[in-house]
Amino acid sequence: MTLSLGDGRPILAFDVGGTDIKSALFDAGGHALGVERTPTPLAGSETPVALTARLAELAAELTSRFPRTTPTAAGVIVPGIVDSTRGIGVYASNLGWHDAPIRELAADALGMPVAFDHDVRAAAWAEHLMGGARAFDDVFVMVIGTGIAGSLIVDGRLHPAGGYAGEIGHSPVAGGSECPCGAYGCLETVASAGAIARRYTELSGHTTDGARAVFARAAAGDTVATAVVDAAIDALVLALAQLTAMLAPQAVVIGGGLSRAGDALFEPLRTRLDARLSFHRRPQLLPAQLGEDAGLLGAAIIARERTDAAA
Amino acid sequence: MTLSLGDGRPILAFDVGGTDIKSALFDAGGHALGVERTPTPLAGSETPVALTARLAELAAELTSRFPRTTPTAAGVIVPGIVDSTRGIGVYASNLGWHDAPIRELAADALGMPVAFDHDVRAAAWAEHLMGGARAFDDVFVMVIGTGIAGSLIVDGRLHPAGGYAGEIGHSPVAGGSECPCGAYGCLETVASAGAIARRYTELSGHTTDGARAVFARAAAGDTVATAVVDAAIDALVLALAQLTAMLAPQAVVIGGGLSRAGDALFEPLRTRLDARLSFHRRPQLLPAQLGEDAGLLGAAIIARERTDAAA
Repeated sequence: MTLSLGDGRPILAFDVGGTDIKSALFDAGGHALGVERTPTPLAGSETPVALTARLAELAAELTSRFPRTTPTAAGVIVPGIVDSTRGIGVYASNLGWHDAPIRELAADALGMPVAFDHDVRAAAWAEHLMGGARAFDDVFVMVIGTGIAGSLIVDGRLHPAGGYAGEIGHSPVAGGSECPCGAYGCLETVASAGAIARRYTELSGHTTDGARAVFARAAAGDTVATAVVDAAIDALVLALAQLTAMLAPQAVVIGGGLSRAGDALFEPLRTRLDARLSFHRRPQLLPAQLGEDAGLLGAAIIARERTDAAA
Repeated sequence: MTLSLGDGRPILAFDVGGTDIKSALFDAGGHALGVERTPTPLAGSETPVALTARLAELAAELTSRFPRTTPTAAGVIVPGIVDSTRGIGVYASNLGWHDAPIRELAADALGMPVAFDHDVRAAAWAEHLMGGARAFDDVFVMVIGTGIAGSLIVDGRLHPAGGYAGEIGHSPVAGGSECPCGAYGCLETVASAGAIARRYTELSGHTTDGARAVFARAAAGDTVATAVVDAAIDALVLALAQLTAMLAPQAVVIGGGLSRAGDALFEPLRTRLDARLSFHRRPQLLPAQLGEDAGLLGAAIIARERTDAAA
């Protein structure tokens, strides 16, 4: 990671996913030291305790490797429904917890103040401060990968709504199918990178290297790939049209694996969204800029912002 | 109008619609005096000037009828797209204006400071301060009448987004048809009170007394009325499910003519919305409480809030 947060307190940062933990120590210059991925310990109902114990081990390794940098706080971000105000992991299908007091467990395990939030919200906040969403006070940041998640920034502030806002991936669209979340017609059943690859395989009988490969086949004239990509883009356009009508954000910043399809994604999104609207104010559709580092940067940022400098 | 705003400065209030202007003088006790409806003067490109001249006539009548109440400011609200920050009527299909400086014209015509905003935003603000949205900081207020309009309150503040937010009536839903706005599939082509009456007449060949009569026929077993009402409720549920996924408001407060259908509207909305969602946080669905007075009350409230007491 070459980006710097700028000067400030040294911070431990942990971006916890369903399979990996990304960890790093940010120094006083805001540079990430010792960035690495390690497996997330999954232990059923004991996952919160096993996870936070693992964070303490990673912290000990980082501070012993970089003895001149002494962190004063940590940022921990996780997927699912996250109540950042109360410090609770409300629900995460991959991690299996319900109402887990992760912030408190992590603070106890690490022995320092912890800022705790949702992974995509933290990433969106980093994009707002340093990346593709920098120019906008009203902006929706969405990440299209295995699933589709998002975060709202309203009047220059994150708007979590108790952890439930931004779930565009679980917004119903025409053509959607049954979703593991329990609802049906969710956007991410058609338009996530995972869905695009899976639907192509189902319809063509061919395995694929993922959504970008399906985009490449569509560009080469494969009719099945074209149909799958078209359906995904139409579903995204519908969800973005609804978002535009309701919230009229100045911009929608799109990250995640699918955003790397570049113009093959953004050009038809822009054209078809424009055609779907009338008097509405069109949002700018822009790529995220921080890539996979956004979460870790966001974790470090919220730790600097939300923990007490005196601690 | 029996409701009082409470003590404060005397205010002139004007709720300008496509056909009528509602006007009143609010006294120092916050009671509305001389509430009446008069026709909106429509004069093509001269409408802004004709309208604000008419507001001055109405003001003169009110102050001569109630000489002991001297207004120090006025609230003027209009439909369409309204930029309340700049005081501009951006667009209103019924009133025919584009980028009309209504606030300045009204202040000149009335000779006093004017607060200017969108009719449904002002009504929503009144519902937030005095009505059905009182208990909530994150709430969507929607008005289902001839069309469908709405207004977002986020963190206890109106969120206009340059005047473009809250347009749930022009959010695309499955089953929608071509909309006079120029888009297609807009919610209000299926689910407004106007659409329900029109679709029933188209499908049955019978004229009707409006949407509530169609609800009554559906309750009495009329299969065409049942189909029209079902399609409207399904479309509303879809739009509310999208709103819930994206914004997760604590409540949705519904006013306008259709809300007077009462449980015949709210019960199936609640049941079907609940069934359409999974992990999402369900908003409370509640009726608006201020009825047709909400706009006029809101106009008076914003005038007290946004104009200078010293003026």
